Amino acid sequence: MCRWLAYSGSPVLLEDLLYRPAHSLIDQSQHARMGVETTNGDGFGVGWYAEEIAPAVFRGVGPAWSDRNLREIAAHTRSPLFFAHIRASTGTAVQETNCHPFRYERWLWMHNGSIASFHFIKRELMVAVDPSLFGFIEGSTDSEVMFYLALTFGLAEDPPGAVERMVGFVEAVGQRNGVDHPIQMTVATTDGSRMWAFRYSSEHHSRSLYYSTSVQTLRQTHPDNPALELVSDDTRIVVSEPLGDLPGVWNEVPESTYGIIQQGQDEMHPFRPQEYASLLR
Amino acid sequence: MCRWLAYSGSPVLLEDLLYRPAHSLIDQSQHARMGVETTNGDGFGVGWYAEEIAPAVFRGVGPAWSDRNLREIAAHTRSPLFFAHIRASTGTAVQETNCHPFRYERWLWMHNGSIASFHFIKRELMVAVDPSLFGFIEGSTDSEVMFYLALTFGLAEDPPGAVERMVGFVEAVGQRNGVDHPIQMTVATTDGSRMWAFRYSSEHHSRSLYYSTSVQTLRQTHPDNPALELVSDDTRIVVSEPLGDLPGVWNEVPESTYGIIQQGQDEMHPFRPQEYASLLR
Amino acid sequence: MCRWLAYSGSPVLLEDLLYRPAHSLIDQSQHARMGVETTNGDGFGVGWYAEEIAPAVFRGVGPAWSDRNLREIAAHTRSPLFFAHIRASTGTAVQETNCHPFRYERWLWMHNGSIASFHFIKRELMVAVDPSLFGFIEGSTDSEVMFYLALTFGLAEDPPGAVERMVGFVEAVGQRNGVDHPIQMTVATTDGSRMWAFRYSSEHHSRSLYYSTSVQTLRQTHPDNPALELVSDDTRIVVSEPLGDLPGVWNEVPESTYGIIQQGQDEMHPFRPQEYASLLR
Amino acid sequence: MCRWLAYSGSPVLLEDLLYRPAHSLIDQSQHARMGVETTNGDGFGVGWYAEEIAPAVFRGVGPAWSDRNLREIAAHTRSPLFFAHIRASTGTAVQETNCHPFRYERWLWMHNGSIASFHFIKRELMVAVDPSLFGFIEGSTDSEVMFYLALTFGLAEDPPGAVERMVGFVEAVGQRNGVDHPIQMTVATTDGSRMWAFRYSSEHHSRSLYYSTSVQTLRQTHPDNPALELVSDDTRIVVSEPLGDLPGVWNEVPESTYGIIQQGQDEMHPFRPQEYASLLR
Repeated sequence: MCRWLAYSGSPVLLEDLLYRPAHSLIDQSQHARMGVETTNGDGFGVGWYAEEIAPAVFRGVGPAWSDRNLREIAAHTRSPLFFAHIRASTGTAVQETNCHPFRYERWLWMHNGSIASFHFIKRELMVAVDPSLFGFIEGSTDSEVMFYLALTFGLAEDPPGAVERMVGFVEAVGQRNGVDHPIQMTVATTDGSRMWAFRYSSEHHSRSLYYSTSVQTLRQTHPDNPALELVSDDTRIVVSEPLGDLPGVWNEVPESTYGIIQQGQDEMHPFRPQEYASLLR
Repeated sequence: MCRWLAYSGSPVLLEDLLYRPAHSLIDQSQHARMGVETTNGDGFGVGWYAEEIAPAVFRGVGPAWSDRNLREIAAHTRSPLFFAHIRASTGTAVQETNCHPFRYERWLWMHNGSIASFHFIKRELMVAVDPSLFGFIEGSTDSEVMFYLALTFGLAEDPPGAVERMVGFVEAVGQRNGVDHPIQMTVATTDGSRMWAFRYSSEHHSRSLYYSTSVQTLRQTHPDNPALELVSDDTRIVVSEPLGDLPGVWNEVPESTYGIIQQGQDEMHPFRPQEYASLLR
Repeated sequence: MCRWLAYSGSPVLLEDLLYRPAHSLIDQSQHARMGVETTNGDGFGVGWYAEEIAPAVFRGVGPAWSDRNLREIAAHTRSPLFFAHIRASTGTAVQETNCHPFRYERWLWMHNGSIASFHFIKRELMVAVDPSLFGFIEGSTDSEVMFYLALTFGLAEDPPGAVERMVGFVEAVGQRNGVDHPIQMTVATTDGSRMWAFRYSSEHHSRSLYYSTSVQTLRQTHPDNPALELVSDDTRIVVSEPLGDLPGVWNEVPESTYGIIQQGQDEMHPFRPQEYASLLR
Repeated sequence: MCRWLAYSGSPVLLEDLLYRPAHSLIDQSQHARMGVETTNGDGFGVGWYAEEIAPAVFRGVGPAWSDRNLREIAAHTRSPLFFAHIRASTGTAVQETNCHPFRYERWLWMHNGSIASFHFIKRELMVAVDPSLFGFIEGSTDSEVMFYLALTFGLAEDPPGAVERMVGFVEAVGQRNGVDHPIQMTVATTDGSRMWAFRYSSEHHSRSLYYSTSVQTLRQTHPDNPALELVSDDTRIVVSEPLGDLPGVWNEVPESTYGIIQQGQDEMHPFRPQEYASLLR
């Protein structure tokens, strides 16, 4: 299992979120409270958008807590939209091509969870990836295959629908192979403009996921907190577990739900896997 | 492109062959003479047999020339049969799961060369891998896919035939996709008892490959060389390029040929890719 | 802080001790129970003796738990005397030259603990290292400086005395610089024939250290345990924390004590730092 | 030996200089023409200034040519003043703390060359480092010791004088120890505002060093080159070897010379090591 953080809002230094909070993602790399493991030391990654259309991605195979380059990059990189991920491998190799976020053109994708019995159904899943995308798969994780399946099923046009079709497909393949609970996931994806976050598992007992309260509400609740004056109204953070203990800041994403972070009003909707029977032979 | 060395004979310290010769494999990692590149610095690997049935494999992502662990292992490991490989990536990621030799059960496999347009025909090749083997592919190289195709086509029962079928299949897929010269390879494989070495390319202009003259002949040619008294009669080395300049030691493997290193008489035969039409849909 | 294991006895596969026990050193790399940190993921090392006089050393900068090369080496290396160490950095860089065990000629050295305010007194300590040894210091840890000070103070001739002088010297330098409790340590060292293990701290509240009960006694206590029939009478293990819960197997090394593991009778003695006034200018 | 590049001028993307030119620094990592070795694959580093006072430093232990993170950082980082270095180790460990540029507060330092017999005189050189600076030395290279000696001798106040004193001191220590030609160096250092580049060796046969012709002159010589319209008048590049073959662009720094790159007129002066007799006991 893993931990991740997705940020959208006023441009911030990455280190302000990755290192500064009491229970920052770096702290979670050694002392996660809500994960299956307390340690997330099997590599890490950050992906951020700046001037360019395609995001930058920096990944490392060592633990995040001791990586000096990550600290340097975080202290000198300012971005209005970035993803960060710390990995706890469930068996696949510790290598950069298995580190999240994964990138395809302007899209980023990161995941916490797993596909059950992935080793046995991997081939069936990969065969369903669009042939024109297949060659871009570089690593060996279930997470990356989920990304390319979502791209195959229309991520660029209809992100929630594509993820619902991907999950429906994985569940169908899993069930046909006798797997009880085929998928467990919290997922974030973005095109650099909007962000989508998903919480779902076949057993309806999903990994933890939290989103930050709207800045306007927080300013009313904590009128004396100067930090809240510095961030823009549309700032939003989605995280595997809260970054601190300030009351009223963190809200659990409900089971089987996805959210959209965007200009204007953010949204939250039920997540319903779609049957994708036609793909099954 | 890459360089490799395969050894079979009296047990030797790995360092005697990897570090000691004038133009050792370590020297070739910086100063290859016959390769496409002089530098082979994109990872390395050694695989060796000892008491156990399955071989040990040690791989690293840095250049071999500066790896201290490789030097330690080589100075303390004695083996009667081992493979060593230094890698020059043709684009795929530098990571341990892309380093040769690849292992499946008691088999090792290493390769110098490439499948042309691999990115585009990778899916078609991988789909042909036996479903029960598919999940064991960990890296992203053409070399590993060639290994799993050979396993699919019967490597364990008939190594030369399986490799001929694998090459025939790759050539058929390539040609159907408009690739002129689909494959370029020198390959070594072993089950820990016998060793097979292949030199072939679709254009019949293959990467260099050499084998050592029989020890008995060498003793007659160089009666004063004490080193030759220490090695057993059946000792044989196959290498991408000669380890030194001693006259009479190194012989070029002919174009489109494979050799078998085994107890008793070694053999050399023409290599003829087999059409594997039935696998193509 | 760190965890370590020292083994002396019948030749064993390293994996039998590093991976197999319920609370093996690999398990301790993620779930240490008695250390300051539960995670020891900042590199690792093993050093072992075999045929050669000088030991082999294999070190890595990633966490031990996910290192595939360590698993390979451990599964194929048999030794009658070896050291293994997993590191939790107290701030110095995560790099191979900071991984234990350190080696000088036929000697190995590993350490759990720290020198207080090392950054500030490092120069004074290093200047006391014998000039002929100074150039061999490769890393930046307090542990390596302790080793070279012990070598300077006669480790090769009188290991307990040399370590007592080293500790006396570090305490004197520390105290002169206003450091309350200058040293905290459990240390193991060996010349490949005998092994010495030390438990000491200036505050007399030292890190945990355990040694295994003699095999003869264990056979009487556990007459039905077949594993005990396979190991020789002189087998002894010293560890930062017990490898399992079998009653009667593990004994705490008393505070301010050192032990000698050797052919014949093992020994245990009080550890008394020696004033080394003459070295202080 | 190594290769390096120092840039000062209009803010540019790092990749424009590290990857784009025909004989870029990345190309030099595999195909250096003027170095002792053609391969510079033992780690790399970049240091750059942006908004912050202290520079960012990103370093890696693998070869620059295959490092994906370097490519990402270079494609997304814009800076008016940066250093880049590719390393060919002369024996010291391949680790980040041995990668250039070295940093102390707002200063960067990088070096190509070596101190002869460094292993033997290292202690004498390190003892001369200011005690308040000693603890900041993290690696094991001669280059880093040169930096801390220069800081000790006044780099922050008088860079050319400090480097002349450092070299004078190294030569005195070397000669007293029977070393014929104690130092060989091209060095660049900067405080983020000005840049100093040095070419010197005790044998007066120094490693290659080149500086770019002034932009104004280049515009006159190449009136049709649109790239020259995009860079500011004060842009200057100093490199171990030219980045391309355009006539009139690259000028050799004369033997025993240093240059100052600064706002207003750049300068070039003779470099004369200063005797630093008082430091020698």
